[in-house]
Amino acid sequence: MLARSGVDVKLIGRAPHVTAIARDGLLLDGLRIHERIPISATTSMAEGLRDAAVILFCVKSVSTESAAREIQPFLATDTTILSFQNGVDNADRIHSAILAYPIPTAVYVAAEMTAPGTVTHTGRGDLIIGHHAGWPRRPDLQLLAAMFDQAEIPCRISDGIAADLWSKMVMNCAYNALSALTRAQYGRMVQSEPVRDFGVRVIAETVAVARAEGVPLSEQDMVEAALRLAEKMTRATSSMAQDLARGRPTEIDSLNGYVVRRGKVLGIDTPASEILVAMIQLLEESALNQRSG
Amino acid sequence: MLARSGVDVKLIGRAPHVTAIARDGLLLDGLRIHERIPISATTSMAEGLRDAAVILFCVKSVSTESAAREIQPFLATDTTILSFQNGVDNADRIHSAILAYPIPTAVYVAAEMTAPGTVTHTGRGDLIIGHHAGWPRRPDLQLLAAMFDQAEIPCRISDGIAADLWSKMVMNCAYNALSALTRAQYGRMVQSEPVRDFGVRVIAETVAVARAEGVPLSEQDMVEAALRLAEKMTRATSSMAQDLARGRPTEIDSLNGYVVRRGKVLGIDTPASEILVAMIQLLEESALNQRSG
Repeated sequence: MLARSGVDVKLIGRAPHVTAIARDGLLLDGLRIHERIPISATTSMAEGLRDAAVILFCVKSVSTESAAREIQPFLATDTTILSFQNGVDNADRIHSAILAYPIPTAVYVAAEMTAPGTVTHTGRGDLIIGHHAGWPRRPDLQLLAAMFDQAEIPCRISDGIAADLWSKMVMNCAYNALSALTRAQYGRMVQSEPVRDFGVRVIAETVAVARAEGVPLSEQDMVEAALRLAEKMTRATSSMAQDLARGRPTEIDSLNGYVVRRGKVLGIDTPASEILVAMIQLLEESALNQRSG
Repeated sequence: MLARSGVDVKLIGRAPHVTAIARDGLLLDGLRIHERIPISATTSMAEGLRDAAVILFCVKSVSTESAAREIQPFLATDTTILSFQNGVDNADRIHSAILAYPIPTAVYVAAEMTAPGTVTHTGRGDLIIGHHAGWPRRPDLQLLAAMFDQAEIPCRISDGIAADLWSKMVMNCAYNALSALTRAQYGRMVQSEPVRDFGVRVIAETVAVARAEGVPLSEQDMVEAALRLAEKMTRATSSMAQDLARGRPTEIDSLNGYVVRRGKVLGIDTPASEILVAMIQLLEESALNQRSG
């Protein structure tokens, strides 16, 4: 979307995607848009990051530290990093790893690489950005938001990005693991009363941990938001289901796993989250073994 | 095993298996035995059941009534039917469908058709038979047990087969759905504390329903038996996992689903069983859709 709007974009990715994109452009198979977009792509950090003003940091939470260290040699002092990741602690983790001050971003999108060089986009596609509390209030978020808006990516600036990240976290915690276990679309999941009730328990646990961390979410608001999400993304399946289908590690550790760990520290019981984490860990192990075995 | 011991056995099954068995015999890839066993096989009920003295009724619980009606035309008055099925009500269901008096049988075995005409046998292989309470006490169970024992299939005669069926039901309820959701082997499942705890909750609910039905199982005995089962069948995965992998309907309705339904009638809460049923139903639907779609 940025490249389409005239921004100079370079993609850094794995060889099969880079080869396909170099040959045919990026095929965006979207909700309104079906286009081949000519765009530069490379597997090389050095090449991709040369003179980068803005880096969209879009790696799975399991790779946050390693990816941060990989880009570190190519950062200028004024390079802006946006953490386009799930979870609530990735900006902190990037900071701990390389002392950068990334912009925490809540990304709402349902999309999948369905073939080399092909993105299938099935839901939403909007951003919330904000300054991390206690960090330098630079760069100017207005400029970033304007760049996204111009590219038809709605981008809101938040005064309390932690609450926005946690709100998205609650949605991920409610849907991702259950969708991966049942391989069901969100719309179908909420039609099942026991699955919906279980999701509500997971939301309650996640909200309790958020509140203990000083982020005053409302459980009722979150439950309503989750039900609206299922309406809006009826046919979506979670990125976790996609990871498992590909025999890749999931982000469970940064989602329900984070809730369980923080719950233990804060003295909050999280039994529903715990069983989800345990089941996904087994499924992950089985999926990896079946790929390799 | 029966055919190996000299019993005249006919298999009735689907065409791919029948063709392979007619050509090469049945390949038994077992724990101690690896043999090709010459054995007659057919897809035809008429041919397979002609002059049958004993029928081993080995169909999934979802097909109990339809299979019973299919065999009905070929039954003699003294044909013995053994229900080799999961669940606790299949003998009753066969009786309701065709007025026969099948012998309820608890089958303990881990086995799978891994290729046309190939059985892979990975655990146990023993039977418990008994007369259904309130039904005619014929045929002579000693003769049946002797036939199995001679074929190296340990067979115990029980005075209270309902308790044996329920004991096996508890094991199935504890393992099958969780193993299907996590695609994990039993040995691995019990190593995960939250999964083990969840299994214990499912056992408690199932035992409570059994007791309300007049079958006085002990929760502690059942938990211990479940842990022993995992030791004995470390590498087993459930038949439910196999069904889902093949895009076939599962037996959830006769297992945890039965517990939930009877629990509702008897006023017993079964929340852990309920969420398992709901998740397996979604997974079943997804698996079927993915096979057909």
